Amino acid sequence: MEKYFDQHISRQFNQELENLRRDVMKMGGMAEEMVMDAMRALLDGNVELARSVISADDQVNQMEKDIDELAMEILARRQPTASDLRLVMAIVKTLNDLERVGDEAEKIAKIAIEMADMDRPRNNYYELESMAEHVRSMLRDALDGFARMVPEIAVTLYRADEKVDDEYEAILRQYYTYLAEEPRQTTRIINAIWIARALERIGDHAKNIGEHVFYLVEGQDVRHIPADQKEQVVLGPRKSDS
Amino acid sequence: MEKYFDQHISRQFNQELENLRRDVMKMGGMAEEMVMDAMRALLDGNVELARSVISADDQVNQMEKDIDELAMEILARRQPTASDLRLVMAIVKTLNDLERVGDEAEKIAKIAIEMADMDRPRNNYYELESMAEHVRSMLRDALDGFARMVPEIAVTLYRADEKVDDEYEAILRQYYTYLAEEPRQTTRIINAIWIARALERIGDHAKNIGEHVFYLVEGQDVRHIPADQKEQVVLGPRKSDS
Repeated sequence: MEKYFDQHISRQFNQELENLRRDVMKMGGMAEEMVMDAMRALLDGNVELARSVISADDQVNQMEKDIDELAMEILARRQPTASDLRLVMAIVKTLNDLERVGDEAEKIAKIAIEMADMDRPRNNYYELESMAEHVRSMLRDALDGFARMVPEIAVTLYRADEKVDDEYEAILRQYYTYLAEEPRQTTRIINAIWIARALERIGDHAKNIGEHVFYLVEGQDVRHIPADQKEQVVLGPRKSDS
Repeated sequence: MEKYFDQHISRQFNQELENLRRDVMKMGGMAEEMVMDAMRALLDGNVELARSVISADDQVNQMEKDIDELAMEILARRQPTASDLRLVMAIVKTLNDLERVGDEAEKIAKIAIEMADMDRPRNNYYELESMAEHVRSMLRDALDGFARMVPEIAVTLYRADEKVDDEYEAILRQYYTYLAEEPRQTTRIINAIWIARALERIGDHAKNIGEHVFYLVEGQDVRHIPADQKEQVVLGPRKSDS
């Protein structure tokens, strides 16, 4: 990070970029909190908490717009270098992923309201709680990697996302069985499927943020590299450095 | 469009931007074709066609990467004006939406393969075929609006998306009833739900593209304006012109 910012002559510009990064971190913190609150609302049947998540989504949407605009303004006032452009692109893409995390949290909150009055399974959706915990840890890693500009976070998140995907598939299989066995619980089980789906998407967004950080630091876009080659590409240059 | 491009002194730069736009259109055409082929594969139980959609997705992903990189290169070589930045941002965001359209088409194709050997309902998923037709028309409008830089396309797409969302909700309600009535058909019905969901997402992406075009032409980000005010904001300045 230090090295990156040293390339700039203007102190004011550095300060502006630093503020931009700080805003993104703040937005990320809010999105993470929304996910946890939405899950808490579901598990506790807390309608009020769910409503607060829904109104937080408006704030997160507004933040995305404001930061996006600020980023464009900063660029337009300067002659951006290739690495400035990369930084701003990485910020704009990260913003977009965070905004979608907020959207998914809002979806969970809406379903939590619908489910507050419904029967609960004996384990009170333990499988969703556990999946949410893993996804939250991915979000934290993504934001931490973004704050410290650590490109290896892309690999950590890539591996974590594979695990979350497996967890998601297992939950779906379980729910499909319930659907066939308990036709009267269709609405409730379908709602639980939508929540699993939202959590899986949040994991994807965390993984995407890891890839934006990698692109920013290393200048290489790894988004669409086939899964079996991704680790090699991401870890490759590091290995040969040592 | 003419007006926009006249602002640039350099002919070469104009040519580069024009090529960029042409590449986006080409990618959009591919994404649209993928959606229609995936649906055709589902309706006809055509596994081979579904496989061709899955391999087309790799091409679309690669195109996104290449065009994205080219856009950054073009910007880095110039002193971009505020409107150049807007154009490039709109292109990058449109690319991202088109890439996700390709992803959704790929999901439909994968499900089509799974469903090729399964029972079919008497109407052969007519409700999905109809929804796909509406979504395709949205995609066409979005690409056409992008090609001609017509900001009003945002309103057209916004209205069309509301209709598609209603259609989606109606299909879900219907499928939930089937789920409760035919527990043996759970897998098949859930698969049909995922397809409806993918189509609904494609409609969202088309709507997003409309908003990118609006932002590009008018310099205003309308993504998160509340639904009931959106039309007014988008149509407002036009109305007072006349």
